[in-house]
Amino acid sequence: MSRSVLMLPGDGIGPEIVAEADKVLKKVNEKFGLGIEFEQGLVGGAAIDAADSPLPDETLEKARQSDAILLGAVGGPKWDGLPMAKRPEKGLLGLRSNLELFANLRPAILYPQLASASSLKPEVVSGLDIMIVRELTGGIYFGQPRGVRQLESGERQGYNTYAYTETEVRRIGRVAFEAARQRGKKLCSVDKANVLEVTVLWREIMNDLQREYPDVELSHMYVDNAAMQLVKAPKQFDVIVTGNMFGDILSDEAAMLTGSIGMLPSASLNSEKQGMYEPCHGSAPDIAGKGIANPLATILSAAMMLRYSLEEEEAAQAIETAVSKVLDQGLRTADIMADGGRKVSTREMGDAVLAAL
Amino acid sequence: MSRSVLMLPGDGIGPEIVAEADKVLKKVNEKFGLGIEFEQGLVGGAAIDAADSPLPDETLEKARQSDAILLGAVGGPKWDGLPMAKRPEKGLLGLRSNLELFANLRPAILYPQLASASSLKPEVVSGLDIMIVRELTGGIYFGQPRGVRQLESGERQGYNTYAYTETEVRRIGRVAFEAARQRGKKLCSVDKANVLEVTVLWREIMNDLQREYPDVELSHMYVDNAAMQLVKAPKQFDVIVTGNMFGDILSDEAAMLTGSIGMLPSASLNSEKQGMYEPCHGSAPDIAGKGIANPLATILSAAMMLRYSLEEEEAAQAIETAVSKVLDQGLRTADIMADGGRKVSTREMGDAVLAAL
Ligand SMILES: CC(C)[C@H](C(=O)O)[C@@H](O)C(=O)O
Ligand SMILES: CC(C)[C@H](C(=O)O)[C@@H](O)C(=O)O
Repeated sequence: MSRSVLMLPGDGIGPEIVAEADKVLKKVNEKFGLGIEFEQGLVGGAAIDAADSPLPDETLEKARQSDAILLGAVGGPKWDGLPMAKRPEKGLLGLRSNLELFANLRPAILYPQLASASSLKPEVVSGLDIMIVRELTGGIYFGQPRGVRQLESGERQGYNTYAYTETEVRRIGRVAFEAARQRGKKLCSVDKANVLEVTVLWREIMNDLQREYPDVELSHMYVDNAAMQLVKAPKQFDVIVTGNMFGDILSDEAAMLTGSIGMLPSASLNSEKQGMYEPCHGSAPDIAGKGIANPLATILSAAMMLRYSLEEEEAAQAIETAVSKVLDQGLRTADIMADGGRKVSTREMGDAVLAAL
Repeated sequence: MSRSVLMLPGDGIGPEIVAEADKVLKKVNEKFGLGIEFEQGLVGGAAIDAADSPLPDETLEKARQSDAILLGAVGGPKWDGLPMAKRPEKGLLGLRSNLELFANLRPAILYPQLASASSLKPEVVSGLDIMIVRELTGGIYFGQPRGVRQLESGERQGYNTYAYTETEVRRIGRVAFEAARQRGKKLCSVDKANVLEVTVLWREIMNDLQREYPDVELSHMYVDNAAMQLVKAPKQFDVIVTGNMFGDILSDEAAMLTGSIGMLPSASLNSEKQGMYEPCHGSAPDIAGKGIANPLATILSAAMMLRYSLEEEEAAQAIETAVSKVLDQGLRTADIMADGGRKVSTREMGDAVLAAL
């Protein structure tokens, strides 16, 4: 059985961190006889520069053919002036929507070795392990109509549409209930049902679904309160499910609670378990090309890929164990030096994971 | 000169905390000869129960006639099942929009006496003093069209509209630039201009306005990054300006960084400086009627009212000094006991502020 993985390094630190994950993936591929074939592609600013499009047809075609995609990051100041349709982010959004990668899984885990990197008090975050399930192909990110129009008064108005159908809510709801069932059996659905009609429907469907998952405890929370509770007592959460925009905000907030966003992977899946895997952090243009970025979030994204899209749990765990080992050895990239440790470069960190495998 | 203030206790702990602010306001009214006349009104769930509407005509009329409004809080589980148009929140939203209270000022200040109440490390939050300027009468809160519709496929779709005109952005932008000018001269505008067209226009107008405020340093940040940066290094911010929805989320997150949301007031102003003043916390139905709620956010809201709408700076400062004094005395309501201190009831706290005046 042959499976194919598409590597999309993208922009900023993307190429550097994907190079390390590439080494790690190839090593486990060999070691566990996984039979993965690797492809390379262009996306984001890199694709704009080379092919005048953030998502060239060729990349989209390769993406469709692949079982899974490993993405670095997209975007940077170089392309900030471009019109919306030509921005690097459109490459990412285009992949999400064309492949219908509606289920975004974003774990926020505090690594015990990095506990003091958090800006929160140790007792508030020690042992933190939350999973945020974010809807990724609907909501205000893709809602129509949208744009900037001229009003009769002569002035301009910008507008976007936040919409969800029952089907869209139900399918992300199921992913979240399933995830909760595998974990602590607690699901918190985040909405703004006291103001937004679209989230009244969201809440109704979540309540509906709950009947199919009697073993999972469902609660609801308004998004403003969720943003507060994450700061106040994040360990009250197990799985959080929410829409695209609220999920963007809350998953980044939750990730930062750990203080080491350079460690956090993410998965974006469709209903065939085809998936795109990327680190939670962005393209970090300020440190690009310096060889100091943390490749571990990307390496852990590769582990998630093995688990969810390729169903190679053993290989996934091997990578996760290797990462834990290099942390135990005290190796640290610049972003996770709060505790001290031995400072290493992007490549040295990748090599250390390889050696630990 | 006679001025009138409308008291709207609302729901949950609202009546208890407004009663204390009422005592304090009446005392400074007398002491400083302010000539304020007081009115009372019904809003939210209390108004639904008494008059079958979250914002009775009589209340709206009184509100229009007043120079300022002091509001407790609205909402509670009792009214959660009602249709959107009949919910307590509509009372609050109706006041905001009918009086065009477009400028919501939400300070997030860490009181040195309560420093250890924060869930963040002391060095991250000590001395924290941020002002969030939130647009309050536009954006997705009021955008049309909105609702739940039946699609041709037979399934339902919920939808809301996130819209801003140039005028709406410009007027809140001015308030924010003015606030920054009075403070640390740093303004951060928060948007999602890499995805939402409405916020591309927002960013353009903010850049435009900057030319009128060359002494203020303007920066832009995506909302997901802002949610992270507030956790990571909140003291990097001076004034933040953003739309209604993002402002709802970020102001609550910022408030919670202090660990003592029971201390934080807010102001909502229109272009005539008429204003509605309310604590940042909500109606807290779980502790309503127990006499243990913290009245200080409401008392400090009364101080903001004196400052912004009634232009009685001396009286405003007298209240703030009195609050600081009772904190120095070690008096604490249940919500701010993290540091120890002497536990007092809602009424005892109000009485202590009175005594300190
Ligand atoms: C780059 C941007 C379009 C993207 C998003 O908002 O979804 C990013 O912030 C993310 O969370 O993956
Ligand atoms: C009660 C609710 C409608 C309100 C809002 O979302 O604006 C509240 O959360 C606030 O921030 O004042």
